[in-house]
Amino acid sequence: MLKLFEYNWQVRKDWFDWCDKVSGEELLKRRVGGIGGILPTLHHIVAVEYGWICGGIQEKAVDIPPFEKVAGLQQIKDFSARCHLEVALFVYDWNDSLEDRIMIDITDEGEREAHKYGEVMRHVIAHEIHHIGQLSIWSREIRKKPVTANLIGRGLFDI
Amino acid sequence: MLKLFEYNWQVRKDWFDWCDKVSGEELLKRRVGGIGGILPTLHHIVAVEYGWICGGIQEKAVDIPPFEKVAGLQQIKDFSARCHLEVALFVYDWNDSLEDRIMIDITDEGEREAHKYGEVMRHVIAHEIHHIGQLSIWSREIRKKPVTANLIGRGLFDI
Repeated sequence: MLKLFEYNWQVRKDWFDWCDKVSGEELLKRRVGGIGGILPTLHHIVAVEYGWICGGIQEKAVDIPPFEKVAGLQQIKDFSARCHLEVALFVYDWNDSLEDRIMIDITDEGEREAHKYGEVMRHVIAHEIHHIGQLSIWSREIRKKPVTANLIGRGLFDI
Repeated sequence: MLKLFEYNWQVRKDWFDWCDKVSGEELLKRRVGGIGGILPTLHHIVAVEYGWICGGIQEKAVDIPPFEKVAGLQQIKDFSARCHLEVALFVYDWNDSLEDRIMIDITDEGEREAHKYGEVMRHVIAHEIHHIGQLSIWSREIRKKPVTANLIGRGLFDI
C-alpha cells in the first residue's frame, strides 16, 4: 500500500516540476475530459486524497479550498504540501489491522455509505494514477513530453 | 494487491463493453498521446500485464502477438481472456513471501535489470490504471461517457 502512495507522491512532484516549464495559460486552459484542465486536475488529486484520508477516515476538520481560490501553480503546490504533512502521517502509520475498519461517508446526495478503510485507501491510490494518465494526454497535445508513469526504476524498492 | 488487480480487470471488462458501442473506425483511429489509440491501448495493457507476470516473473514462454495481428475488438478481447487465465492463477496465488523475490529483466537495450516481484506487481497495477485514464480523455473527445474509474462502490469489498 505504502509503495503505491510513494509512487503517486513522486509522480505528483514530477508533474509539478513539469508544470514549472509550461505557461500559466496552458496550465489553466480548459481541456476536454476529466476535470477539464491541468491545474484543476492537480488540485482535484490533492483534494480527494486529503478529503478521504483526513476528512473521511480520520474525521478531522479539513480545509479544502475550491479551485478558484488557489488557481495558480505555486498555490496548488502549497496546498499539496500542506495536505501531504497530514496524509503522510496516516499512510506511514498504516497497518493491516486497519483494513476492515469502517468509515461512514455522507455522499453529495446526503446518503450514508459505509466503506472499509482498505477500500478507501485503494480508491485514493487508483484515483490519482487515473487522473495522471489524463495529464499525459494533454501533455502530448501541447507537444511536451509527459512525466514517465513507470513505477519500475523509480528507486522505490531497494535490492 | 489482489483488490487492485480485480479493480483493473473489472474496469477493463467495462471498457470492452464500452467498445461494443463504438465504431471500429473510432476504436482504431490514431490519437494524440499514450499508445496512440483505443484498441492499441487495450492490447498494450494486456501485453504488459501478461509479459511481466507470466513471461518476466514466471519465466514462461509467452505468445504476445503484435497489435497488427489482433487489430480488432473481438481479437483483443480474446487475447485478454487467454492471458487472464494464466495471470489470474498467479495473482490469486500471491502471498507476502513473494514480495522480495528477484526476477531478472532483459531490457530492450539488452541490459540485465533485477526487480523484486513486489515492484513488478505494483508496476503492472499502476500501468493499467494510467492507460485507462488516457482512454477516458479520448472517450470525451468522441462525446461518449467514459467508464467510471471509481474503485469505491464496485463491490470489491464486502461489508
